[in-house]
Amino acid sequence: MIQAPRGTRNFPPDEMAYRRWAEGIMRRNAELFGYGEVSTPAFESLELFTLKSGPGIIDEIYAFKDKGGRDLALRPELTAPVMRMVVNSMRSAPKPIKLFYLGNCFRYDRPQSGRYREFFQFGVEVISAGTPAADAEIIALAIKNIRDLGLEDFRVKIGHIGVLRGLISGLEKGVQTSVLQALDREEYDSLSSMVSDDVAGRLLNLIRLKGDASVLDSLGDEAAHLRKVMEHLSLYGYEKYCTIDMSVVRGLDYYTGMVFEIEAPILGAEKQICGGGAYSLAKLLGGGDLPSTGFAIGFDRVLLALEKAGKRPEIPSRVIYLLRAGNVPSNEMVKLAADLRNSGIAVDFPLADKSLSKGMKYASAMRYPHVVIMGEDEWKDGKITLRDMSTGKQETLSVEDLIARFS
Amino acid sequence: MIQAPRGTRNFPPDEMAYRRWAEGIMRRNAELFGYGEVSTPAFESLELFTLKSGPGIIDEIYAFKDKGGRDLALRPELTAPVMRMVVNSMRSAPKPIKLFYLGNCFRYDRPQSGRYREFFQFGVEVISAGTPAADAEIIALAIKNIRDLGLEDFRVKIGHIGVLRGLISGLEKGVQTSVLQALDREEYDSLSSMVSDDVAGRLLNLIRLKGDASVLDSLGDEAAHLRKVMEHLSLYGYEKYCTIDMSVVRGLDYYTGMVFEIEAPILGAEKQICGGGAYSLAKLLGGGDLPSTGFAIGFDRVLLALEKAGKRPEIPSRVIYLLRAGNVPSNEMVKLAADLRNSGIAVDFPLADKSLSKGMKYASAMRYPHVVIMGEDEWKDGKITLRDMSTGKQETLSVEDLIARFS
Repeated sequence: MIQAPRGTRNFPPDEMAYRRWAEGIMRRNAELFGYGEVSTPAFESLELFTLKSGPGIIDEIYAFKDKGGRDLALRPELTAPVMRMVVNSMRSAPKPIKLFYLGNCFRYDRPQSGRYREFFQFGVEVISAGTPAADAEIIALAIKNIRDLGLEDFRVKIGHIGVLRGLISGLEKGVQTSVLQALDREEYDSLSSMVSDDVAGRLLNLIRLKGDASVLDSLGDEAAHLRKVMEHLSLYGYEKYCTIDMSVVRGLDYYTGMVFEIEAPILGAEKQICGGGAYSLAKLLGGGDLPSTGFAIGFDRVLLALEKAGKRPEIPSRVIYLLRAGNVPSNEMVKLAADLRNSGIAVDFPLADKSLSKGMKYASAMRYPHVVIMGEDEWKDGKITLRDMSTGKQETLSVEDLIARFS
Repeated sequence: MIQAPRGTRNFPPDEMAYRRWAEGIMRRNAELFGYGEVSTPAFESLELFTLKSGPGIIDEIYAFKDKGGRDLALRPELTAPVMRMVVNSMRSAPKPIKLFYLGNCFRYDRPQSGRYREFFQFGVEVISAGTPAADAEIIALAIKNIRDLGLEDFRVKIGHIGVLRGLISGLEKGVQTSVLQALDREEYDSLSSMVSDDVAGRLLNLIRLKGDASVLDSLGDEAAHLRKVMEHLSLYGYEKYCTIDMSVVRGLDYYTGMVFEIEAPILGAEKQICGGGAYSLAKLLGGGDLPSTGFAIGFDRVLLALEKAGKRPEIPSRVIYLLRAGNVPSNEMVKLAADLRNSGIAVDFPLADKSLSKGMKYASAMRYPHVVIMGEDEWKDGKITLRDMSTGKQETLSVEDLIARFS
């Protein structure tokens, strides 16, 4: 029997309802913050990703040639495609450009808990801003999303890769990259083989800075930006979630300033549920210099965190199931279903003859909250019996009253 | 500059808003009819599609090997993946199973108007029914979707491939396929080289049957199913859109009974916007015999038809843009934005210092319907000026009144 490819998933109706519920919260929040939704193709020119992340990325992605010999890749992330779109076709849009998206991404990775070969990201980008207000808005939107989903135990670690880069700006480019990679992997011992003891010491002092906004006092002017970001986050009422942590580096070369990560400790080792920061990518793609800030929430991870925390909500069905006594013509049931649906009421009914008792069983298995029974005697008077499936309570209503109650 | 791959598209915010509007109508209708949403991976084992459509399909699809040597394909359609999911993991679900989905599909095709290499389909399947009620419900849901989008000029052609197959059931399987292909391509002259004059004559008489339900009178019992489907469609009030047309064959082997197509004449040669019918596919995939009916609406085509018909709606922005006079502290604007957003009001504000006049220009370019100005004197009294951008009318309100008006 053919299965879904390794590392990919099917989403049956109850899973999909859960995902749409979460998507709805994130989408509504992005709209409340004035972001507009965009979408890009599932595959891109391979070059887009090697340009952004280097040729090493090819080992981790689904790359293939099309029949015209073009090198294509299933997108491993969404920031580069969205920035490509902005550079291609939104250059004359009013600035800043505020965008959000939810999409599937692909990585040829060993599948494990919460990690899939087809996974989903919810992301936002504010393009051509680069101010503390923009950075704070992005972090605030990420926090609001996670809070509104119902996750209570999470923490936001905020750093600034620009301050770090400032310390090593005199070094060769290759050494700078090695240093940042070592910091990202927390391989602090290896620093001494790359830089002088003095620089290594100052780097280690910097990345040890962790705590509330007051830890920035030791940094002087270079931390003015982060101070303002923290000030804004307290205006949003979100300072309690946020910690300054100068060891946050993020894996990617293109970050330039504020960087942040959100962790859900309940996930254990794979606890990161969101990452983002200020970056410069448009220029690399042939656009102007458009300072940008964005985040990506690991949609699957955040849902897993909610489940582990017991916060996955029950998404109730709203469907009314119609049944009829044997003597009521089936055409009258179809007509009633059509009328109810046209009044905005979700209705299902047996598509083949079904006894009342089998119908009740089906309604119960589908967790439909209500059954409407067209009993012979009532129906002659234009009335139906409404049964509440959770209490078993039944009442007789006119069709008009039924419509008034549920539409 | 890197572009989106040939035949694929970027959807900027105004396009995406249009697509979400249309998706919302179709999604709501599917829910009103008691269908549950599902989703499957963007790629599948290549075998899934060759099993359903034969090896010839490989020429038309994006097929590739992953790093583990597996033969994969970007999905060219969604019925086979959904049926695979049902066979894999929903076999014990209560029957019938009623599913809907919206997803991207991929075909390596020459791009042309309304045809893309990445295109979108909205589809539904009712699985394990196969009754006239099920067939009629599927057609009714397709019609309701297209009507509710606002398209007025469309027609539904309904045939029955089972009746056609009945006429040629005595012939060799290969000949049967050739005949159906000839009929699908409307190459009626070629029939005489495949079958006897008698059979050719009867086939031509059959496919000439076109009109309202009364044309079925000449067919006797074998048309009982279609008669009932038409009766149901008149209960939905949809008989005016529907024509019996026994020449509808549909390209695919797996259809077994009722088949239908919906056309929007405004699209000219590429006028088909929806196709579907009764089919048997689960058995081929290793499941039981689950008679099914479904349709796929060409999401891009239907949107194109709406545009050509001048029915593309303007999706208005609901965002309020906040501006402040120079002496009002920016932190107070950020705080007001956070409060309004927490009250469910969509708000944007300048992320860098912006003069009032530049701010008004931005709001106008973004087509924001309202601007809130925090003027120094009013703000001291906790009041703001609300400007209606379409009329230019301004009024002074307390923040409470502003929230009451828009939340």
